[in-house]
Amino acid sequence: MRLYDNLSSGNGYKVRLLLRQLGIPFDRVDLDITRGESRTAEFLERNPNGRIPVLELDSGAFLWESNAILYYLADSTAFFPKSRVARSRALQWMFFEQYSHEPYIAVVRHWIHTGLSAGREAEIEERRSRGHAALGVMQRHLADHEYFVDDRYSIADIALYAYTHVAHEGGFDLSGYPAIGVWLDRVRTQPGHTPIDEP
Amino acid sequence: MRLYDNLSSGNGYKVRLLLRQLGIPFDRVDLDITRGESRTAEFLERNPNGRIPVLELDSGAFLWESNAILYYLADSTAFFPKSRVARSRALQWMFFEQYSHEPYIAVVRHWIHTGLSAGREAEIEERRSRGHAALGVMQRHLADHEYFVDDRYSIADIALYAYTHVAHEGGFDLSGYPAIGVWLDRVRTQPGHTPIDEP
Repeated sequence: MRLYDNLSSGNGYKVRLLLRQLGIPFDRVDLDITRGESRTAEFLERNPNGRIPVLELDSGAFLWESNAILYYLADSTAFFPKSRVARSRALQWMFFEQYSHEPYIAVVRHWIHTGLSAGREAEIEERRSRGHAALGVMQRHLADHEYFVDDRYSIADIALYAYTHVAHEGGFDLSGYPAIGVWLDRVRTQPGHTPIDEP
Repeated sequence: MRLYDNLSSGNGYKVRLLLRQLGIPFDRVDLDITRGESRTAEFLERNPNGRIPVLELDSGAFLWESNAILYYLADSTAFFPKSRVARSRALQWMFFEQYSHEPYIAVVRHWIHTGLSAGREAEIEERRSRGHAALGVMQRHLADHEYFVDDRYSIADIALYAYTHVAHEGGFDLSGYPAIGVWLDRVRTQPGHTPIDEP
């Protein structure tokens, strides 16, 4: 398989991490998204929405949306629950991640990383507030659960770990969320865990 | 089953529509989200993220995130594809809907509906631009496909239909997207189709 990726992207990291934990070999093509490399005509043939990650399957098909790729890779493995309710619950947290978490926590980090934060102070404050709301929802759940679904590590944890563990790079102070801190450590000690910047 | 819902919500409509197309009877509890009824302490016990729709299962468990509820209801039915690639592709379009479509097309409609648009002209213009980008991605796909996955009606179509068919209420002109217009008619003529405002 081939992964179109960017090393600083948490969305890309989700897929890299799961591929490694599953022991699946892959080629990685790093795109400079700040220079428009995910918006070229060639790349839009792979993902018409112009974003990484994109997974090129052995069949030559291209699959996009990080959490859909996680589902593709994890289905029928120990990384995705078996029961209908638990499977839906994993997706529930993954949709939560894309709707209520990533647009705030990841986007603020991206702006700060890429020097796009100047002049956006009010918007950053608004997004920080919504990011903290998402962290509050996670803290509430993790206060009495070891993981997001069935007290067992799954792709729901991978999806939420990706940007939570680097939230401080967007100026989010996690010290008020002790259960999140414990859970981050729990995810970090999973077999085969690799850091976000491992190419 | 019991659905915590709001009649003007496209996210609620997704679930209502699929429940009816599956022939599953349900109770519907309508919440006035503009008056904070999805943010009460009682409701946060059902969904800590404070949003509708929430589906209360016969077991008493609460499932939230509209597209995760669609997955729960559609799994093992004709509304969700069978093959691993096609299942992942359906989820790909559903994550696209929540990340690249709903925050722009649904949110602008909501602001206009609820009188929150005054003073937000610049943000509405920005969100309209991103909404049109999402419509462009849909048009490109639908120009040579009847539906989003495997040329067959699925929950990916339901997820994208919900806010696309009322996009004009947010000031989006769909006349530049002819393939979307044809697809909207195709979805509307599915057996058991009901309109968004059917309680």
